[in-house]
Amino acid sequence: MIDKLIERIRATGAPIVVGLDPVLKFVPEYLKQAAYQEFGETLEGAAQAVWQYNKGIIDAVSDLIPAVKPQIAMYEQFGVPGMAVFQKTVDYCRQKGLIVIGDVKRGDIGSTSEAYAAAHLGRVQVGNRLLSAFDEDFATVNPYLGSDGIQPFLKVCREEKKGIFVLVKTSNPSSGEFQDKMADGRPVYELVGEKTAQWAEECMGENGYSYVGAVVGATYPEQGKALRRIMPHSFLLVPGYGAQGGKGADLVPFFQKDGLGAIVNSSRGIIAAYQQEAYAHFTERGYADAARAAVNAMREDIQRALETAGK
Amino acid sequence: MIDKLIERIRATGAPIVVGLDPVLKFVPEYLKQAAYQEFGETLEGAAQAVWQYNKGIIDAVSDLIPAVKPQIAMYEQFGVPGMAVFQKTVDYCRQKGLIVIGDVKRGDIGSTSEAYAAAHLGRVQVGNRLLSAFDEDFATVNPYLGSDGIQPFLKVCREEKKGIFVLVKTSNPSSGEFQDKMADGRPVYELVGEKTAQWAEECMGENGYSYVGAVVGATYPEQGKALRRIMPHSFLLVPGYGAQGGKGADLVPFFQKDGLGAIVNSSRGIIAAYQQEAYAHFTERGYADAARAAVNAMREDIQRALETAGK
Repeated sequence: MIDKLIERIRATGAPIVVGLDPVLKFVPEYLKQAAYQEFGETLEGAAQAVWQYNKGIIDAVSDLIPAVKPQIAMYEQFGVPGMAVFQKTVDYCRQKGLIVIGDVKRGDIGSTSEAYAAAHLGRVQVGNRLLSAFDEDFATVNPYLGSDGIQPFLKVCREEKKGIFVLVKTSNPSSGEFQDKMADGRPVYELVGEKTAQWAEECMGENGYSYVGAVVGATYPEQGKALRRIMPHSFLLVPGYGAQGGKGADLVPFFQKDGLGAIVNSSRGIIAAYQQEAYAHFTERGYADAARAAVNAMREDIQRALETAGK
Repeated sequence: MIDKLIERIRATGAPIVVGLDPVLKFVPEYLKQAAYQEFGETLEGAAQAVWQYNKGIIDAVSDLIPAVKPQIAMYEQFGVPGMAVFQKTVDYCRQKGLIVIGDVKRGDIGSTSEAYAAAHLGRVQVGNRLLSAFDEDFATVNPYLGSDGIQPFLKVCREEKKGIFVLVKTSNPSSGEFQDKMADGRPVYELVGEKTAQWAEECMGENGYSYVGAVVGATYPEQGKALRRIMPHSFLLVPGYGAQGGKGADLVPFFQKDGLGAIVNSSRGIIAAYQQEAYAHFTERGYADAARAAVNAMREDIQRALETAGK
């Protein structure tokens, strides 16, 4: 799957992943009203509004980008109907040829981690049949529980040719509370990065990159530089661009000299572009076209920064 | 909710939580066959088998214990039908007066953490209505992302009188890889414990205990002793009893002198007791009675250990 990701990045010229994180306040009023009219102000109604919203965005941007990253929390908050729309979104994106990174940040141990890996990347045995549940292409995972939590994912990745991104250094302000603690003379996130590099070696694709990537926030470019060195075979999934403050120029250290090695996420900067001043002229009904324009602007910003840096 | 938990521990004399972690190989054949006959070897069929299995166990043990802990991964692996059975299980347990600890180990930042908190403990605004999704009483949360990930849960806990258990020191063999790293002269899990103690102070119940508890594995009693001191107001949720190797006597350090302060989880040791030699005479059809017998044995084991220690 990492090879397919690289191929699609090359084809689109866009090392970009669009975060499908549909908070209800991003969803245009007319879509919410239509959904509530049909299903009432219920979890089903909210889920329907989210689905219509997602579908509009996916249709508008699927030819421009290699991948999407639905944040499962935004679906989970609408209970079972929300989870059904998560699944529908994953299926629809894959039909459109997009790579789906399930932002699930799961992490547990032993048989529980096996169950999460089966739920999101693998298959589960039911009687004589092997069945897929949510079936994303990649999943994000939390490393706090150590190798016991990661190994079941690696096993599934090898079997199914899928991948994971391990949380190494997150983009949020308080990410330093535990991740930056100095241990054995180095911050914890570096130790997690080293461990991730080892896991990456176990799961190499065909293009010099591993199925095992890492999440490293755009808001910490200095740390990104160090982690880029520590994990030479890992793609970095970089959140924090746009709304969280990261800019194109900040992203350069996350990329390798070949211009690959990183994929940058933007969520509300794309999917709620129509709510920003720069894209307000699209109006609510043009939210999908606004998203398309925002993707194009983001691609140009990153390409310019990489060219300036000679990558 | 912590006060209700304490009340129910006193009423039952059992500081025990039964882990509802229904791996299919634990589910008796006759239940699986009946479910597959009705729904086929499908995710729906698997989910139905799990539901019937859970219901039998809940009916058999609900008067003996204060709380259950469904592990959401075991439901998530069966996709949307699995999530529907997770919800059904939560609802059924709450109807029976049991406290439900959602073992979800969620952890993210900002609005994403808000969405998880809403999904599992709080409510979500849909139009003019506030709706609950899964609506457990407690949830387990992962601290790797720092305070940004925890604060949204604390807010919901205060509003809804619910609670969380923060992963501090987990029971698995590789938990030491990051949790035991020495930082500022102390292991990372102690730093997480200190932060948890601060969060706990912000959310006190009426009986001297906080809504904010901690997960500390039974397999590490020495660390448990230190963490018991560091987090004086937190209930400790202790996994690792039974199948993972923890015994009654190992549990003493996790309790306070008042005999409270800890609640011990057992999953397969209870729900798959009929597969153990000691309970094999119950046979497959008696799996629920076997679970009841195993709960009684666990309660006696813990009570004996606490009495011997004068707690």
